[in-house]
Amino acid sequence: MNRVVEPSRPRAADLGLKIGLLPHGRHNAITDVAGVSVGHVTLVEGEGALLAGQGPVRSGVTVVVPHQGNVFRQKVTGAVHVVNGFGKAVGFPQVTELGVIESPIALTSTLSAWRVADGLVDYMALANQGILSFNPLVGECNDGYLNDIVGRHVRPFHVTGAIEAAVSPNTDEGNVGAGAGMTGFGWKGGIGTSSRICELPSNQYVVGMLVLTNTGDPRELRIGGAQVGRSLLPPGSSEDTLGSIIMVVGTNAPITARQLGRVGRRAAFGLARVGGVASHNSGDFVIAFSNSEERPQVDDSHLTPLFRACVEATEEAIINSILRAETMTGRDGNVRHAIPIDRLAELLRAAGSVD
Amino acid sequence: MNRVVEPSRPRAADLGLKIGLLPHGRHNAITDVAGVSVGHVTLVEGEGALLAGQGPVRSGVTVVVPHQGNVFRQKVTGAVHVVNGFGKAVGFPQVTELGVIESPIALTSTLSAWRVADGLVDYMALANQGILSFNPLVGECNDGYLNDIVGRHVRPFHVTGAIEAAVSPNTDEGNVGAGAGMTGFGWKGGIGTSSRICELPSNQYVVGMLVLTNTGDPRELRIGGAQVGRSLLPPGSSEDTLGSIIMVVGTNAPITARQLGRVGRRAAFGLARVGGVASHNSGDFVIAFSNSEERPQVDDSHLTPLFRACVEATEEAIINSILRAETMTGRDGNVRHAIPIDRLAELLRAAGSVD
Amino acid sequence: MNRVVEPSRPRAADLGLKIGLLPHGRHNAITDVAGVSVGHVTLVEGEGALLAGQGPVRSGVTVVVPHQGNVFRQKVTGAVHVVNGFGKAVGFPQVTELGVIESPIALTSTLSAWRVADGLVDYMALANQGILSFNPLVGECNDGYLNDIVGRHVRPFHVTGAIEAAVSPNTDEGNVGAGAGMTGFGWKGGIGTSSRICELPSNQYVVGMLVLTNTGDPRELRIGGAQVGRSLLPPGSSEDTLGSIIMVVGTNAPITARQLGRVGRRAAFGLARVGGVASHNSGDFVIAFSNSEERPQVDDSHLTPLFRACVEATEEAIINSILRAETMTGRDGNVRHAIPIDRLAELLRAAGSVD
Amino acid sequence: MNRVVEPSRPRAADLGLKIGLLPHGRHNAITDVAGVSVGHVTLVEGEGALLAGQGPVRSGVTVVVPHQGNVFRQKVTGAVHVVNGFGKAVGFPQVTELGVIESPIALTSTLSAWRVADGLVDYMALANQGILSFNPLVGECNDGYLNDIVGRHVRPFHVTGAIEAAVSPNTDEGNVGAGAGMTGFGWKGGIGTSSRICELPSNQYVVGMLVLTNTGDPRELRIGGAQVGRSLLPPGSSEDTLGSIIMVVGTNAPITARQLGRVGRRAAFGLARVGGVASHNSGDFVIAFSNSEERPQVDDSHLTPLFRACVEATEEAIINSILRAETMTGRDGNVRHAIPIDRLAELLRAAGSVD
Repeated sequence: MNRVVEPSRPRAADLGLKIGLLPHGRHNAITDVAGVSVGHVTLVEGEGALLAGQGPVRSGVTVVVPHQGNVFRQKVTGAVHVVNGFGKAVGFPQVTELGVIESPIALTSTLSAWRVADGLVDYMALANQGILSFNPLVGECNDGYLNDIVGRHVRPFHVTGAIEAAVSPNTDEGNVGAGAGMTGFGWKGGIGTSSRICELPSNQYVVGMLVLTNTGDPRELRIGGAQVGRSLLPPGSSEDTLGSIIMVVGTNAPITARQLGRVGRRAAFGLARVGGVASHNSGDFVIAFSNSEERPQVDDSHLTPLFRACVEATEEAIINSILRAETMTGRDGNVRHAIPIDRLAELLRAAGSVD
Repeated sequence: MNRVVEPSRPRAADLGLKIGLLPHGRHNAITDVAGVSVGHVTLVEGEGALLAGQGPVRSGVTVVVPHQGNVFRQKVTGAVHVVNGFGKAVGFPQVTELGVIESPIALTSTLSAWRVADGLVDYMALANQGILSFNPLVGECNDGYLNDIVGRHVRPFHVTGAIEAAVSPNTDEGNVGAGAGMTGFGWKGGIGTSSRICELPSNQYVVGMLVLTNTGDPRELRIGGAQVGRSLLPPGSSEDTLGSIIMVVGTNAPITARQLGRVGRRAAFGLARVGGVASHNSGDFVIAFSNSEERPQVDDSHLTPLFRACVEATEEAIINSILRAETMTGRDGNVRHAIPIDRLAELLRAAGSVD
Repeated sequence: MNRVVEPSRPRAADLGLKIGLLPHGRHNAITDVAGVSVGHVTLVEGEGALLAGQGPVRSGVTVVVPHQGNVFRQKVTGAVHVVNGFGKAVGFPQVTELGVIESPIALTSTLSAWRVADGLVDYMALANQGILSFNPLVGECNDGYLNDIVGRHVRPFHVTGAIEAAVSPNTDEGNVGAGAGMTGFGWKGGIGTSSRICELPSNQYVVGMLVLTNTGDPRELRIGGAQVGRSLLPPGSSEDTLGSIIMVVGTNAPITARQLGRVGRRAAFGLARVGGVASHNSGDFVIAFSNSEERPQVDDSHLTPLFRACVEATEEAIINSILRAETMTGRDGNVRHAIPIDRLAELLRAAGSVD
Repeated sequence: MNRVVEPSRPRAADLGLKIGLLPHGRHNAITDVAGVSVGHVTLVEGEGALLAGQGPVRSGVTVVVPHQGNVFRQKVTGAVHVVNGFGKAVGFPQVTELGVIESPIALTSTLSAWRVADGLVDYMALANQGILSFNPLVGECNDGYLNDIVGRHVRPFHVTGAIEAAVSPNTDEGNVGAGAGMTGFGWKGGIGTSSRICELPSNQYVVGMLVLTNTGDPRELRIGGAQVGRSLLPPGSSEDTLGSIIMVVGTNAPITARQLGRVGRRAAFGLARVGGVASHNSGDFVIAFSNSEERPQVDDSHLTPLFRACVEATEEAIINSILRAETMTGRDGNVRHAIPIDRLAELLRAAGSVD
């Protein structure tokens, strides 16, 4: 089973956009990294006035599973980075100290972060009887503009559901999983993914990115370099949102945790390329892993292609997260509009960004 | 109502120990910082063989409430520090970024950390209707040697219970709250507290410390400088434990988050003075706050007394956490013994540490 | 005296480029921050084959002086940030710890960094008799492609010369001071500057930026959103250089060191917008200061305009550093070419980036 | 040639002190790590009134050479840590980024730090023709109480002299090299060294420490657990000094830079055990290296013995730095007294710290 369907809305590459210098992987998704799977549980229920605890619900959980074995027992090399720390990311200190990730990586709604962490523990404890310590890893963005966020509708069992639903390849984007209630540069945002292939002297490696986009000022949006936010703005007020972006980088390159941290920190460069400034209230976090089973063997002097890959995959994943998301109406009738593809394509052609 | 009772077991000062150069506050507790209260919910239920999810339970939750108003609305200056990051502390990135704490600080059992965080959100959301983002702050230690840790018996409602039970003064120590199942240098450990008074040119300030002790090698224990671990060891095997220590520093000094971080980082020095080495598997974290409502106005050149106060209060709080804890038998008949006071006093007299 | 001359080559604004959302200050330079002055000593001597210790010399020193008093005695709020640490920046740990800068900020050639630091001490010791400790602050980039870098031709007395030559306004850019031997995205690079005006609820503030550009891959250069590196490449080989960029941010906003750090970290976003990826061998550092004499009084929730200002001023300063630099031939006949303005303007018009 | 002479003053072990649990290496010095050598150039000239630039001189330079090959070409694994950043340590950002040290490690007087760095470049450039970038690594303490510090009498050629004088074994301590003008807990301080042997499952490894002690409050001095500062104080005023301590950790354990950082951070624990609090004005820095040529192969779960070794070797090295230093009179007749061995031994016996 896989999730590579003909999308109803185009990805960046479908528009003819060529982001950066490096080629993308087979499906242009984080699942191009062998062994990685992605699963989503999407919760869209109810409509109308917000009734805390009851809905409407526009939320979900997304999991990135670093490999298909027992991740707790076969930990992957890990690194995390805080671009702007106004957020509730769970599990970061231990990754920093030990350089490993031992849990599927879950993304969700801000106030559901701890229930999702508890759900990861349910899953790990069941699979690892007798173990007394687990470090669940969760990133979150605030979907409170569309979702009954205080209701915390994402529950532990949804986490298990998402892990069980995880597949590869998976190019689901937009309003899926944790992306259901998110906003990107004033437009409907959510999940996006991309990948790049790097040629190093030793070998060819893949860098994949999956983002949960919920950040950005509409006026600053740049797509393929073109400053589309100068002429294309979402309808209605552009009131500031409780933003955030979580950027999950995966690779099969055999690198150390220190080197992986260097790669991961470049995700911020991809965010900047689409116009992000990491505003005060945007919790912008990076989670990076390498699932290589080889001993680390890449010299730092060969890392630049991996850095570039991370920048480019982030840039493209964010663009995809906005292109693919459909208009969503949420609590109290709040609406986030899908970016209009025709008008956007026109602007890109005028700027020479696509033919 | 307060919690300053005649203890069944002595504190460091009761033994005649004088730790450091500075005088302690009125009750020698973190609650000497005006406005601070502490509450415990202690869970001790069942005995015999471990049955995951059922018990026995030797756990609990402890909360330090920085002031008696609405902490979310009147945030306190905050700083955190990771001494050794093998732990699951919740809420650290936002404190680092913004320099404020907006939640009561909760301590608990490792695998209950996220349920406790969720409980803090319950509490804060109820008191702050319409707010869509909260950053709960939780530290944890691993009580799995005595407790059914996977069962996660500390639940959200216990958090609310502990907050409602918070009082000042409060010198409860040892097996209370989160301390129920903890181990200190091979002996029964748990909660300990202490305080120091600092004279600065501008004013007199209090630095208070509350620790949750679950770390340390018995052979390295130093009390009042005396190397008691050289001759006084707990009965039975000294198998390595899943350690950790959480050190909560509070002060009323009007200092910035950066300065508070400098103070808080000295907690590690207090841990070292009692013989700690921050072993690989010990998650050693510092959470610091200032509840001063004045503008920061202390020059860095006057901070050394606050640093010293933090070191001394930490040293004494850790000693108290061991002195005050009573023998506890937990799951599968595992026992942690109280340190024998008579024998200890003898050693301290021989070393000249007490008269 | 000032240095606002009719440039022989245009700045970004002269081409009609409008970078970002915010207006620039009066001279669009870091010296728009009241009190800030900038001085350059440029060393261009000799030609032909490299003879280590003798030349040719294509180097210099640039100083940013935070205010016109005694900077050691009236220290300014300071923060530093390491984007990619392959560099020899001097003085960072103390700024991180204490949140102040007590020295003029000097930029120079990599291997001259320590002699320049020693020169700052000469200057400070003379002005502050009886003081026994100074923390000079130096950033560097590697001009070894054009310059006899091992010869370390920038000497302490050049530092004093640059400080004495510092003026405001100062829009000298390109091959001046430390910029003499630098390379930007394969073209001749060097010094660039820009500024932005921010409206905060409390007041209007200026954010100024001065960069020393010596980084970037020609193929990735983006100017005003146009991906000019796709069609405009420097003549000759594009062998990888020993890159780096130093970004100096100044402001008069009354913010704390922690807040200033948040502002400064956004400089990386400006670098990313022009196509930088912070390659392995590029030492990319940020030095930030606020020379406000007021007590800090800006709430974090109002910082986003300052973040945006830093991003935009960095983007524009880097572009200026390339636009303004003239072709330079250095040691062994190595050449860095000025970017051709006519061809560039054509590309910008085609992309709609300028009218 | 070696430097293991019958000392005029005892080391800790000579007094019968047993610090910690682990055995020390053959010479109880950092040179017990195979390949490591240490060299000192000591500058003691002139007496009487301070005449800046002329003397008196009580200063020097100490180098720790990680192995006997070309350190630039065969870089060693490296890590640095800032305990309290009020200091001018040179070269830290690049070590943090790349995890390697490529230079001998030099210690010196605060204001000579940059000239010493320049001297390291002289040395490295000569040995590595054609290389255009070097990262010299220097730690410093402030010897201005005894020394004409502004005169910066340690010059580049002294650095080369110290490197050429480096030998193994080397147990020179006290007033040698950079230690000439330093103060430890109010007494004469300076250079101290120690080592520990660790048994890991894979192998036996050495951890060595060399400190430059210039920090501490006399009242807080603890030696071997005895609080000697309670009754033994240096004559005369105890005015606060411009303190600092540099702690250089070397090992032959095959560990990664991340793991080495974990080891190095424990040096602060050794400082705390002797009574240090890292006062505001004390620049307390750690430089750590592993000169193992094997691939990293130690699991983090086996690191605790290395942590303990670092704590214990630091504690003992600091004690040695004070025990071994002889009384020194410096500029303006300022005196730092040697700690009186007889009186100290008496106190240690009374506390049971020695037999």
